[in-house]
Amino acid sequence: MPHEHPPGMVKLVGAGPGSADLLTLRAARAIENAEALLYDALVADEILALAPAACVKIQTGKRAGRTSMKQETINRLMVRMARRGLRVVRLKGGDPSVFGRVGEERAFLARHGIASEVIPGVTAASAAAAQLQMPLTHRGEARRLLLATATLRDGRLADLDGADAADPKTTLALYMAHQSVAAVASRLIAAGRSPATPALAVENAGRPDARVVFADLQSLPAVLAEAAFDGPVVILVGEVVRQAEFAAFTDPNLAMLSLEAQA
Amino acid sequence: MPHEHPPGMVKLVGAGPGSADLLTLRAARAIENAEALLYDALVADEILALAPAACVKIQTGKRAGRTSMKQETINRLMVRMARRGLRVVRLKGGDPSVFGRVGEERAFLARHGIASEVIPGVTAASAAAAQLQMPLTHRGEARRLLLATATLRDGRLADLDGADAADPKTTLALYMAHQSVAAVASRLIAAGRSPATPALAVENAGRPDARVVFADLQSLPAVLAEAAFDGPVVILVGEVVRQAEFAAFTDPNLAMLSLEAQA
Repeated sequence: MPHEHPPGMVKLVGAGPGSADLLTLRAARAIENAEALLYDALVADEILALAPAACVKIQTGKRAGRTSMKQETINRLMVRMARRGLRVVRLKGGDPSVFGRVGEERAFLARHGIASEVIPGVTAASAAAAQLQMPLTHRGEARRLLLATATLRDGRLADLDGADAADPKTTLALYMAHQSVAAVASRLIAAGRSPATPALAVENAGRPDARVVFADLQSLPAVLAEAAFDGPVVILVGEVVRQAEFAAFTDPNLAMLSLEAQA
Repeated sequence: MPHEHPPGMVKLVGAGPGSADLLTLRAARAIENAEALLYDALVADEILALAPAACVKIQTGKRAGRTSMKQETINRLMVRMARRGLRVVRLKGGDPSVFGRVGEERAFLARHGIASEVIPGVTAASAAAAQLQMPLTHRGEARRLLLATATLRDGRLADLDGADAADPKTTLALYMAHQSVAAVASRLIAAGRSPATPALAVENAGRPDARVVFADLQSLPAVLAEAAFDGPVVILVGEVVRQAEFAAFTDPNLAMLSLEAQA
C-alpha cells in the first residue's frame, strides 16, 4: 500500500500555511503517526500538537534572521532518527516542493540508504490568495503565475530577474520577502513594471494572525516599513491584487495597516 | 467565527488533485456540511462521497473536449442555490486561485449579493511533484517556478511566451496541456530552451491512477502521442525533472510508458 509509514522511513511533509485545518488529510495522518518530528520554525503549535505525546520533536529553526540548524545538521539528524527505526516526519511550511529544499534532503537520505516520501501541501501563495479571496490568475489580465524567492545575497536580489517579472500579465508571488521589499520594487520598476501596479505583502499568510498591507508597487516599501512585520512575508504583485477582499475578513487579527494609515 | 457556513453562502473550495486524502481538513469539512455541491469533472468520486446523502450534487463538466456547462450557467446555478438558502459548495480541482476562474465566480456572486469564501487546495504542480518525489525548485538549478496554461486558441498557444519560458533556471508547470504538447515543445525550443531539457507529462496528477511519461523536451510529443492519455495533463519542464523518482511508486497504475518503450 502507498502511504504506509514503515519504521526507518522519512516522510517529507508539507504543513501548509500554518493553520491546522489547512493541512491535507494525508499530512495530518503522517504527523499523528510520527515517532520523530523535525519541524521548521514556521510550523504552528496547533499542528505540532497533532503528534503523539511520545513523539520526539525537534525544531530545526530556519527562520530568516534567527539562529537555525545548518542543513547538514538537519540531514544527519533525519538519518540518525531513521536508523533508530523511528517513523520520521520532516515537516516544512507550505509545499515541500516549492522552495522547501526537498531535493537536497531526499538526495542525502537516498545516499544513506533511507527511504523517503513527499506529501504535498498548500503553498503560501495559494494560502494568501484564499485568505484575501482573490485569484492568482484571471482571464485576460493575469495569464501566468511566477513564484520566486526574494532573498537578498550581498544586498542584491539573487533570484528575481528576467522579462517575466516585468510582464504586466504575470502575477508574481515572492517568498521570503521580509527584508527585500525595497529591492523588489526597484528591480521590478527598473525591469519595466508600472510603479502603479497593485501589490500587497502578507505576513503569516494563511494563519489566523495574518496581517496584510496593500499599496502600489512604488509605495509598498514605505507602507511595509510602517507595518514592521516580524513573521515570514509573501509579496503578491499584479492586476489580480485589485480583487483582494479585506472587508470579508472577520478575523480582528488581520490588520489593514495601509488602510488604517490612509484613514 | 471564520469558516462557518451560513445558509445562502457559497464556498469556493479547492478539491486538490483528486485523492480524497489530499483535501485540506477545511475543504473536507465544507463538503461534509454542503447542501448543494457544484463540481467540476476532475473531482473524484471518493471526494463527492464525503457530501451528505441529501446534498444536491450537480456536475458542471468543464473537461477539455467534452460537453460542459457554460460559465454563465454555473454562475446562475450558484446564485439560485444560494438564494434557496442552501449551504453551497463550488468544488474545483486543485487550488481555486490557480487557473480556477475564482475571480469571475466571486465577482458574479458579489454582484448578486451572495457572500462567498475561498478555501485553498493543493495545485496540480505540487501534487505531481510530490507523486514523483521531485522538487519544483532546487538551489542553483531551478530558482523559479512558472505556472501557465497550455491551451490552444486557433491552434496556437495562447498564454505561453516570454523569456522566462526559455530561462534554463525556471521550472515550467503547464496546465491543460493535453492537446498542446507538440506546440509547447516547439515554442520552448524556438524561445531558446534546449531540446535536451528533461520534461515529463503526468495524466491525473496526484491520483492513484496517475500515469507519466518522461523524455527530453524534443521527444516528449512523440512519447506522449504513444501514451494516448485521456485525462487532464500537466507538463513539467526543467532540470528538476531529472530528480523524478519512478521506482518509488508502488502503485501499479502508474505506468512508466516511456521507460517501457525503451525496454
